[in-house]
Amino acid sequence: MDALSWTCPAPLRDRPRVVMGHGGGGAMSAELVEQVLLPALTGPEQASAPLTDSAVVELGGARLAFSTDSFVVRPLFFPGGSIGDLAVNGTVNDLAMSGARAAFLSCGLILEEGVGIDTVTQVAEAIGAAARAADVRVVTGDTKVVEAGHGDGVYINTAGVGLVPAGVDLRPDRVVPGDVILLSGPIGLHGVAILSERENLAFESDVLSDCAALGGLAEAMLSVTTTDLHVLRDPTRGGLAASLNEIATAAGCGVVVQERAVPVPPSVAGACAMLGLDPMYVANEGKLVAFVAREHADAVLAAMRAHPLGAEAAIIGEAVTDHPGMVVARTGLGGTRVVDMPLGEQLPRIC
Amino acid sequence: MDALSWTCPAPLRDRPRVVMGHGGGGAMSAELVEQVLLPALTGPEQASAPLTDSAVVELGGARLAFSTDSFVVRPLFFPGGSIGDLAVNGTVNDLAMSGARAAFLSCGLILEEGVGIDTVTQVAEAIGAAARAADVRVVTGDTKVVEAGHGDGVYINTAGVGLVPAGVDLRPDRVVPGDVILLSGPIGLHGVAILSERENLAFESDVLSDCAALGGLAEAMLSVTTTDLHVLRDPTRGGLAASLNEIATAAGCGVVVQERAVPVPPSVAGACAMLGLDPMYVANEGKLVAFVAREHADAVLAAMRAHPLGAEAAIIGEAVTDHPGMVVARTGLGGTRVVDMPLGEQLPRIC
Repeated sequence: MDALSWTCPAPLRDRPRVVMGHGGGGAMSAELVEQVLLPALTGPEQASAPLTDSAVVELGGARLAFSTDSFVVRPLFFPGGSIGDLAVNGTVNDLAMSGARAAFLSCGLILEEGVGIDTVTQVAEAIGAAARAADVRVVTGDTKVVEAGHGDGVYINTAGVGLVPAGVDLRPDRVVPGDVILLSGPIGLHGVAILSERENLAFESDVLSDCAALGGLAEAMLSVTTTDLHVLRDPTRGGLAASLNEIATAAGCGVVVQERAVPVPPSVAGACAMLGLDPMYVANEGKLVAFVAREHADAVLAAMRAHPLGAEAAIIGEAVTDHPGMVVARTGLGGTRVVDMPLGEQLPRIC
Repeated sequence: MDALSWTCPAPLRDRPRVVMGHGGGGAMSAELVEQVLLPALTGPEQASAPLTDSAVVELGGARLAFSTDSFVVRPLFFPGGSIGDLAVNGTVNDLAMSGARAAFLSCGLILEEGVGIDTVTQVAEAIGAAARAADVRVVTGDTKVVEAGHGDGVYINTAGVGLVPAGVDLRPDRVVPGDVILLSGPIGLHGVAILSERENLAFESDVLSDCAALGGLAEAMLSVTTTDLHVLRDPTRGGLAASLNEIATAAGCGVVVQERAVPVPPSVAGACAMLGLDPMYVANEGKLVAFVAREHADAVLAAMRAHPLGAEAAIIGEAVTDHPGMVVARTGLGGTRVVDMPLGEQLPRIC
């Protein structure tokens, strides 16, 4: 093997077993999906059909968004939320990123033998409260129990369906150079909140997860422009860095981010500095990033700021013709750094 | 506490922790759903809305069936099928029991750190092959990884959506005394196949799981009569006994089964006799039971027998006005026995 045949990350065939990084939402996750799952699930004849977080399909004359997520976050309850909030908002947000308002959710529980009935009750109550807050109904469910030592209290899967309004077509490959990048608010809160609870770290000020349902915010943005809003993405696992890299790759254009324009709360910045984390890679659960045609950027920004979940929205960069598929950040000191696709995960089991 | 205040099973409040029986599909599962999950998930104002295996909802003018199931079967591969086959057929069948042909599936994987990539590949290939066989498309997915010791190789959740044809209204509370009970074929194969593989038991002849997609069979039955087919149910966890008890309770009528009319393969009967199991309580994954108005029973039976998955279909009993909510079996010797709702599970993690 000569030097030229090396690739980074090392190809999947050299890793015979699943490692935590395969669930991190970065390059290793993508490799597992693209090399193993997609070819097996869809078969050779459908190999080009993308397996997305939220699919848009036609059924009975209705245009539906359909999405699923499993939730294995640890601990089950954390500052600002719980696995129940994530389970509702995660799927509601996947649908919202297709421009759909979630209508119905399913809820599958995998309970570990020995978990307290009171814990299950609290989780279910959190799911119910989050569903009512997001105006979505849990209409079908399933419960399985596994032996102690084969789970971790409660795992949840939700799937959701919602209607995609006529004319809405949000896809990363619709992004073109010149598009302006909008971010709905400060990043890093969810990941730091989880970490502080898990590791029992006390930061200068309490950091609360930003877990929230983004359907209303997305609707407000789409009411400004349906056609010139090109893509929405919620930067969860892998953080803002992963979302921007995925969009740059799918669109075949470059992305430039003004680092100073990205809102990072002092508490998040402090925690990240202490722990050696980059806020750009930390998970969020109530933020979205949008690529919008330049002529509508200010109006969309104004609509975001008028919504409670977008009050701190900001323009953070643009799509460019240079360095296609690559994300770069202009630093506060005038320099430039590459914002890579994360390989595995900084923080496992963040959602 | 006096003797009169005792109930059987003991109420949930006396069990502070989840036990395996809560996942068995019997009375303990129902208790968990009705006492804990439903009130928490739906809130007081929606307490009367049932949480069903397959919900029928209206969206964008379309009448949709929407369902979910998680799969934690052990082992992952067993005679006649795998967790991948179950994950597709289980959800396809839940939709079919609402009279819907499944159109789209989601697929959420929870992988345990250390599981072989080859195992994941085989599971995904089984999902893909089963989906193609059932003519349903996997259009959206998610993958999470949990640490070794917090899973068991691969857990799968699928959710599915399908169209419910006009006029189709399959519900247990539509059953009325006089309805004839049809069963699509021999019972007990799935549970015995799992058990034989798990416990390394060698029975006289190999028993293969009956895991199959029932959408086509259900369509053939509905083509005979839409309105006079009152309910379909696939007897999975808890077996035929649980399905009949659920229907008897929801319909408020009695159920009488002619024990000799229920097809039990000799291999299943032998295994059950050896292991002290009752075939009526053993899980199936490719069978359905139907309650049909008497005047259409023979025609529906003929349609079932004309379908490969209903070749051994039989009339096994009827709904009666006596003993409402109770299932009784007339034995071959002319006696009668009560077929109780199972409490927990005979065989954990059967699906």
